[in-house]
Amino acid sequence: MRRTSERLVDGREIIFFDRPGAPERVVHDPRPMTALTTASQIRRDPMLDEYVVIASHRQDRTYLPPADECPLDPSTDGRHTEVPTPDYEVVVFENRFPSLSGNGRCEVVCFSSDHDARFADLSPDRVDLVLSAWIDRSLGLAALPGVEQVFCFENRGEEIGVTLSHPHGQIYAYPFVTPRTTRMLEVAQRYWKQTGEVLVDEVVAAERRDGSRVITETDEWTAFVPEAARWPVEVHLYPRRRVPDLPGLDAAQRADFGPFYLDVLQRFDRLYGDPLPYISAWHQAPLHVGRDLMGLHVELFSIRRAPGKLKYLAGSESGMGAFVSDVTPEQTAARLRAAQ
Amino acid sequence: MRRTSERLVDGREIIFFDRPGAPERVVHDPRPMTALTTASQIRRDPMLDEYVVIASHRQDRTYLPPADECPLDPSTDGRHTEVPTPDYEVVVFENRFPSLSGNGRCEVVCFSSDHDARFADLSPDRVDLVLSAWIDRSLGLAALPGVEQVFCFENRGEEIGVTLSHPHGQIYAYPFVTPRTTRMLEVAQRYWKQTGEVLVDEVVAAERRDGSRVITETDEWTAFVPEAARWPVEVHLYPRRRVPDLPGLDAAQRADFGPFYLDVLQRFDRLYGDPLPYISAWHQAPLHVGRDLMGLHVELFSIRRAPGKLKYLAGSESGMGAFVSDVTPEQTAARLRAAQ
Repeated sequence: MRRTSERLVDGREIIFFDRPGAPERVVHDPRPMTALTTASQIRRDPMLDEYVVIASHRQDRTYLPPADECPLDPSTDGRHTEVPTPDYEVVVFENRFPSLSGNGRCEVVCFSSDHDARFADLSPDRVDLVLSAWIDRSLGLAALPGVEQVFCFENRGEEIGVTLSHPHGQIYAYPFVTPRTTRMLEVAQRYWKQTGEVLVDEVVAAERRDGSRVITETDEWTAFVPEAARWPVEVHLYPRRRVPDLPGLDAAQRADFGPFYLDVLQRFDRLYGDPLPYISAWHQAPLHVGRDLMGLHVELFSIRRAPGKLKYLAGSESGMGAFVSDVTPEQTAARLRAAQ
Repeated sequence: MRRTSERLVDGREIIFFDRPGAPERVVHDPRPMTALTTASQIRRDPMLDEYVVIASHRQDRTYLPPADECPLDPSTDGRHTEVPTPDYEVVVFENRFPSLSGNGRCEVVCFSSDHDARFADLSPDRVDLVLSAWIDRSLGLAALPGVEQVFCFENRGEEIGVTLSHPHGQIYAYPFVTPRTTRMLEVAQRYWKQTGEVLVDEVVAAERRDGSRVITETDEWTAFVPEAARWPVEVHLYPRRRVPDLPGLDAAQRADFGPFYLDVLQRFDRLYGDPLPYISAWHQAPLHVGRDLMGLHVELFSIRRAPGKLKYLAGSESGMGAFVSDVTPEQTAARLRAAQ
């Protein structure tokens, strides 16, 4: 893997990840654009003891541009985009409209220069290159002052508010441990004190033993619908041997990941015969706490509950945090097993 | 207030709430409908120690029927709805497609027989009748075996998945303490142990002292945008004197509530010159724990972040529980104060 770090005209960092033999990435960014000074605020909700990010500079960000103005395409002579090279394989750059700035950082990851590609269409080799980028950025962002947790994720589909259809994901480096991870860590610590066991190991072992919700396995990875799934389609992907975060993956786990993840994503798209809107969320241990108790995994889920029907988070979910699911996890697992 | 309890043809309870002098409610329900036997499951997510409801019988429920088939309209000779009387003021009945059944219960509350009314259009008298219904049901559902928390709420707007536009709300009687309330209670207990003070009292007092996010007040109630608001429009409504739940409200608090709540709702609808999709969530203390530490309040919020633009819960919110807001709470408060 070859890594090329450059700067955009406004000073933001851009990093190219290429396989050996790819053309050299020579950046030429002539856009008449000056540096934006943005600063988000972090506030604490005292009633829930949770942090909330206030990023009031983001209201004017790019919103569903026509395909011929996609800012994630490579640049051409006539059109200068966020990626100032004629082509790329995988590229990461700082978001011009970041949710986190001043404290924390937000980056965009383009998975392919092909505007119409989907992640599920990538080659296993390309997925490995994306994985290299996620690992590189997890390490790089962890080294920034004040960062407590790095979150790599992909939002796919207008139904969940994606404003750019070009295949891409995002990376957030939070200056706090996120509310969901905080809660997971509290539960894992309590379990460890009570039993001396690591909760995530027990949960994954129990799912594998039971088997009724397992979708697919490799020698290194297991994918299952969790017993108490919240979303109409929800799959959790765990490496068999627990690691705290992406940089902790070994060569065998990395080698297996591409075909495994593609298999699960392709089942998602086959489920309703239509690309499924989804969120793919890498849960990594925080950088300074709980690293022995948290297990790296992907939570992949969709709000589509039937063809043409979405699950909305209404009163029970948004008000009380009490999810109501219209399908059993076992039904979802059976349908995903059949969708090969 | 006059209360009339009857049964629908399939055995579900229906309760009419009327002001004195309203016509007697004589139920005639000739629909060829038999009792549904439904049972939801409650499962515990071990990683977050939270309950999830699996209600797999709900996939086929009524979905956006045309206005002339609205099941919440009064019945006529030719058309038999869920309310088998020629008119009503406020009526509550058990949901035919409940999220919670077997353990817990779900009810529907119709605020008006006028299909096209909005809550914000109701008279203060009518709001008081709705409040009477909420109090009655909070007491009635609390008496059912296994119920731990009663949640009265209104979802308004197709944007948040409302399938019936007739003005109505819902009441869930959960057989567990909801995840959000559990978290609030843990935080309140920790605060009380550390300081000997009740957290909610301090938070409301601090907001009133600061004033920059207060929208409106009466002698009995205060409405403010919380300092760490998660949603593009979010207002919390607290009675000045803390009570654990709706049945705890005294006569003065009840008398003030109608005009006060209508004022806030009308500001919501004026904000973008267009009815705002919203969720209105009554936070009540659980029935058996934390009653001295929790304060009854309404959390009223919208996902509309600008005219024609919605806030979606994507990776950061749905994956990590980390909300990113595009507006400052002080900006939102200033706009709501001006929207009178």
